[in-house]
Amino acid sequence: MKDFVVTPWEVKGEVDYEKLIKEFGISPLTQELLERIKKHTKELHPFLERKIFFAHRDLDWILDMYEKGEKFYLYTGRGPSGEMHLGHLLPFIFTKWLQDKFDAKVYIQITDDEKFLFKNLTLEQTKKFGYSNALDIIALGFDKKKTFIFLDTEYSKTLYEQAIKVAKHLTFSTVKATFGFTNETNVGAIFFTSVQAVPAFLESVKEGRNVPCLVPLGVDQDPHFRLARDVLPKLGFYKPAVIHSKFFPSLLGKNAKMSASEPNSAIFTTDSEEDVDRKIKNAFTGGATTIKEQKEKGGNPEVCSVYSYYYFLFGKDEKELKQIYEDCKSGKRLCGECKQILAERIKKFLKEHQRKREEAKKEIDKFLIKD
Amino acid sequence: MKDFVVTPWEVKGEVDYEKLIKEFGISPLTQELLERIKKHTKELHPFLERKIFFAHRDLDWILDMYEKGEKFYLYTGRGPSGEMHLGHLLPFIFTKWLQDKFDAKVYIQITDDEKFLFKNLTLEQTKKFGYSNALDIIALGFDKKKTFIFLDTEYSKTLYEQAIKVAKHLTFSTVKATFGFTNETNVGAIFFTSVQAVPAFLESVKEGRNVPCLVPLGVDQDPHFRLARDVLPKLGFYKPAVIHSKFFPSLLGKNAKMSASEPNSAIFTTDSEEDVDRKIKNAFTGGATTIKEQKEKGGNPEVCSVYSYYYFLFGKDEKELKQIYEDCKSGKRLCGECKQILAERIKKFLKEHQRKREEAKKEIDKFLIKD
Repeated sequence: MKDFVVTPWEVKGEVDYEKLIKEFGISPLTQELLERIKKHTKELHPFLERKIFFAHRDLDWILDMYEKGEKFYLYTGRGPSGEMHLGHLLPFIFTKWLQDKFDAKVYIQITDDEKFLFKNLTLEQTKKFGYSNALDIIALGFDKKKTFIFLDTEYSKTLYEQAIKVAKHLTFSTVKATFGFTNETNVGAIFFTSVQAVPAFLESVKEGRNVPCLVPLGVDQDPHFRLARDVLPKLGFYKPAVIHSKFFPSLLGKNAKMSASEPNSAIFTTDSEEDVDRKIKNAFTGGATTIKEQKEKGGNPEVCSVYSYYYFLFGKDEKELKQIYEDCKSGKRLCGECKQILAERIKKFLKEHQRKREEAKKEIDKFLIKD
Repeated sequence: MKDFVVTPWEVKGEVDYEKLIKEFGISPLTQELLERIKKHTKELHPFLERKIFFAHRDLDWILDMYEKGEKFYLYTGRGPSGEMHLGHLLPFIFTKWLQDKFDAKVYIQITDDEKFLFKNLTLEQTKKFGYSNALDIIALGFDKKKTFIFLDTEYSKTLYEQAIKVAKHLTFSTVKATFGFTNETNVGAIFFTSVQAVPAFLESVKEGRNVPCLVPLGVDQDPHFRLARDVLPKLGFYKPAVIHSKFFPSLLGKNAKMSASEPNSAIFTTDSEEDVDRKIKNAFTGGATTIKEQKEKGGNPEVCSVYSYYYFLFGKDEKELKQIYEDCKSGKRLCGECKQILAERIKKFLKEHQRKREEAKKEIDKFLIKD
């Protein structure tokens, strides 16, 4: 029996990433591949060291091409169903790092159409969130000369003409099997994956020649690119390569992806210091029921959402992480102190992020592309 | 057993329009309605006199609104899968007449996306046909200040944003039942009806208030508007009213709609004088096998494609039509002469049309709207 579900619109249960690799038919990121990346980047991003980006499709091919002198571009995106939480930032933080290291153009698709079609939200709401999310993305430091952000509904003249070329090669049977649609799914939702496929070859259309594309994303989005990889060669384009991240864990325990519908499950980029203090104080930990017991028996960082936060974003380096892990296990590091240190680091991060987010308001027009 | 099929993508067999009225749930154009129209237009277009436009949805409501001072706009369209034949001109000739009589704005949608998605044509081909078809439409004399022609792929920023609002209310079940789609239909084709619905409320979006819309069309297109009429009120818009035409008959006999894939079945607007002479000479008639027999027993105009051509477009008036009919029945008018007169009238029409079509090349930018 499957005890977890991962689709672009639903993530449920504790995800077994080994199983997911088999189920999705993706490849694990091997040590050999990491070494090849390091040859070009000099250092490895912690997301790679820690296998937070853990799997890929054709990343070896992207490196082959790069080594032959064919540069790739990057494509990632955001579904604007609400404000962004820290987990939503992962692919963008990583994409920004790749941009710097490989001097790559970046396309960022904000799917206001998708969230309108799949959720109980108006288009006005998803657009508003889209603009707000764009500020968070810009705040991460993307190169304004090489980064192109668009809302689908504001770039749909460009997108629709290409999307129908993809759509002509996708039957209802195929999208039904891939996404678990039913006959009651709306026809916009059925069409949508065609729109998400477009930025994976748009640079090639613009350049009038094939340009390799690498897509960093949360692994739940992989099915879109499984289809895109089938269709794009039929249109004369390269298959996009993909690099997949794990899900940032919920503050309420490991059984859920963080979600905008559960505000206490995540730290949002727009949260106040009080929000952070309260959420971290109430976070699910691997601690024992009493301090006495924990000092004796130790805690369990494996199930602890606070430890996860250090692991994903707030541990200084591998050495510190290892220390936190061991001190928790041994009962030396107690939850109160551990939470307090984390809360301070998050607040520091958010203060800086929110400042850059304000500045991004002045810069947004340099990033946005529209028809 | 049904001996004919009418869908937007297939018309087969000899259409029984009485049956079609029941099957589609549309209303016959009554004498009472024609009188109401005549009150405003002074004279009735031959297409109305002859019941070539034979059915409607909510035309009475359009007249109610008009009489209360709420003017309507017109919306019709063209699927650019090839050059246009005379049958394709019917809705446009009629729409132009309605524009003149009711001083109405006209939106004309050229569905290059649809023909790409449903046919074995490239988008380059459907666009090329789209531009060529636009010339035929403009040649009919539309008012350039009040007529807005667009190719879907060149107006898709405007269209897509509205289309997804329609799409959200249409399930696969619904479009499957309406159009006879299967699980192997491509997802662009499944989505497409949402795009065709948009011009039926676009004027209301632009004006920021509800404006009644009347759609003159070939009856095969009715299913799109059956769906649009279900969905638009959910978006706060009026249901579009519709007025339906019969199919212009094939030169090869009554069992087929004219078709671009059978060049001899129709006179195309781009045909030469030689083409016309040849096609009319070879046309299927209601004549007897010998002249002697025909003089004795008469011909049968009911099944005659040549008579149909007089009936639909080339009869001077009701009086002449009646005369042709009777002279055929009595054996007085023979096929050779009847064909020759028709060929001359068609050639005269085409010569004038082709001249205006050339002039339209200079005017096209005044009609085309793009994002």
